[in-house]
Amino acid sequence: MLEKVEFLMKQMIESLNDKHILELFHKIPKGKRLRAKLILKIAGLSDDAYKLAAIVELIHAASLLHDDVIDDALTRRGKDSINAVFGNKTSIMLGDILYSKGFTSLTTLAQNIAYKVSNAVALLSVGELLDVKLSEEFNTNEELYMDMIYKKTASLIEAASASAAMLAGKNVEIYELYGKNLGLAFQIIDDVLDITQESEKLGKPSMHDFKEGKTTLPYMYLYDRIDEYEKERLKSLFKKDLSKDDKIWIKNKMQETSSLDDSIKYAKKLGLEAMRAIRDEDSEGLKKIIKDMIERDF
Amino acid sequence: MLEKVEFLMKQMIESLNDKHILELFHKIPKGKRLRAKLILKIAGLSDDAYKLAAIVELIHAASLLHDDVIDDALTRRGKDSINAVFGNKTSIMLGDILYSKGFTSLTTLAQNIAYKVSNAVALLSVGELLDVKLSEEFNTNEELYMDMIYKKTASLIEAASASAAMLAGKNVEIYELYGKNLGLAFQIIDDVLDITQESEKLGKPSMHDFKEGKTTLPYMYLYDRIDEYEKERLKSLFKKDLSKDDKIWIKNKMQETSSLDDSIKYAKKLGLEAMRAIRDEDSEGLKKIIKDMIERDF
Repeated sequence: MLEKVEFLMKQMIESLNDKHILELFHKIPKGKRLRAKLILKIAGLSDDAYKLAAIVELIHAASLLHDDVIDDALTRRGKDSINAVFGNKTSIMLGDILYSKGFTSLTTLAQNIAYKVSNAVALLSVGELLDVKLSEEFNTNEELYMDMIYKKTASLIEAASASAAMLAGKNVEIYELYGKNLGLAFQIIDDVLDITQESEKLGKPSMHDFKEGKTTLPYMYLYDRIDEYEKERLKSLFKKDLSKDDKIWIKNKMQETSSLDDSIKYAKKLGLEAMRAIRDEDSEGLKKIIKDMIERDF
Repeated sequence: MLEKVEFLMKQMIESLNDKHILELFHKIPKGKRLRAKLILKIAGLSDDAYKLAAIVELIHAASLLHDDVIDDALTRRGKDSINAVFGNKTSIMLGDILYSKGFTSLTTLAQNIAYKVSNAVALLSVGELLDVKLSEEFNTNEELYMDMIYKKTASLIEAASASAAMLAGKNVEIYELYGKNLGLAFQIIDDVLDITQESEKLGKPSMHDFKEGKTTLPYMYLYDRIDEYEKERLKSLFKKDLSKDDKIWIKNKMQETSSLDDSIKYAKKLGLEAMRAIRDEDSEGLKKIIKDMIERDF
């Protein structure tokens, strides 16, 4: 099923008639293809569904290429990132190529689908800038954080889900709600895993978010639940290279204050909302996506 | 006429509901709006024509934001570039925002127009990578150079012209040919001006292309027309900071060998082909665009 998506993605890049680009494309670490799975589960295995899945994955890959440049990320999924191997400029240009090729193919689908997906990319791009801006200071505003992860992560998953429903003639609103909550929960689980998992498992450095200035949900919960002295200590570690002791202190405090557990609980709550949205649909597969996503360990 | 285009561009950015982005947007140095003028001249002053003009200018601005990062350009149109003031990362993110917002608006126009313009952006992105790749070594292959400037510069001008014709129900092929030749001529004149004009006039450093590894048409003509000893000298200056004497030597040699004149002649020839394409159309304005473009001094 996903093989056909990979094949179509490759075909889109091949249509650019440039060997160098195709070589670079093959060096991009492949992801979980969550968005493709989602689209095929909702829209079925039609030609247009495969095409939409390939387009959304191409666009997602483009966003990660730029993301890794913005975040100075040198590894992705346990492999060297494109910017680590070929430099930031190549990543920017390859990202632009994947974006524009994705948009071009998108214009061959129905207009409401093309609008939905491209509008999500606009939100995603705004979300990236918000993320960087929030990372300038120690952010404790949960509302700003949720708005940012909605735009940066959930919007494209929401659009994937909604546009697949459009393709299949299903009720768009409920799939949109499903996708949005899935996307939010996905990001929160990602934020938790950054703290709880070892770097080998993550395929990237562990506890890297805080060093990057990202006070994700567990950090906000923690900050809210510790005394003034500890608040100062936590703030003093913000954006710093954490020592082993610092990491242990943060993790222990998060355990003590249930900051990690409550973040997971919140993700589960969002997962349940996603499931509730599609409760009247014949959608065992979509329920499994939620379950697997929450229970994943990388 | 162009004020309305500026207004629509601003409106598109405002619809993102983010003050920070709007502030950044206003700091982007404004260009000649060649593409907007072209669209309005061909399609007339309808609402859709204004919209298309604003979209294409937004997309063009996005491409320049990324371009300046790729080329390490610190000035643009006599002003500090966005990357010079706010850093590369902000330029990348703002470029992505302008691109994706442009694509989103594009999906509200007719499908053939949306396809044409987005496909041109894919070519443009490929052209950017080709440009960087060609700049790695001293390139003397005129065919590769022409293919690169077609993709990087002419494709979007070609698409602007063709999509405006689609909008107005005019003969698309002849306007496409017009736009393509206009775009090619435009880039060659740009390459000539880089050599002949002072930096104050250009609004960017003069004779900067060669330092960036770009052996543009006048350099290729020159290389072809000098002896072995001079060829070595020219090659030794490739990608170097040029001294005043080096610059004078190159310019004198280009004069002697008619390399600049012949580049201008070639641009004029392309300009004539553009005019010939639209010879049966009522298009004084379009002929004037060609004339002004070739005779411009910055």
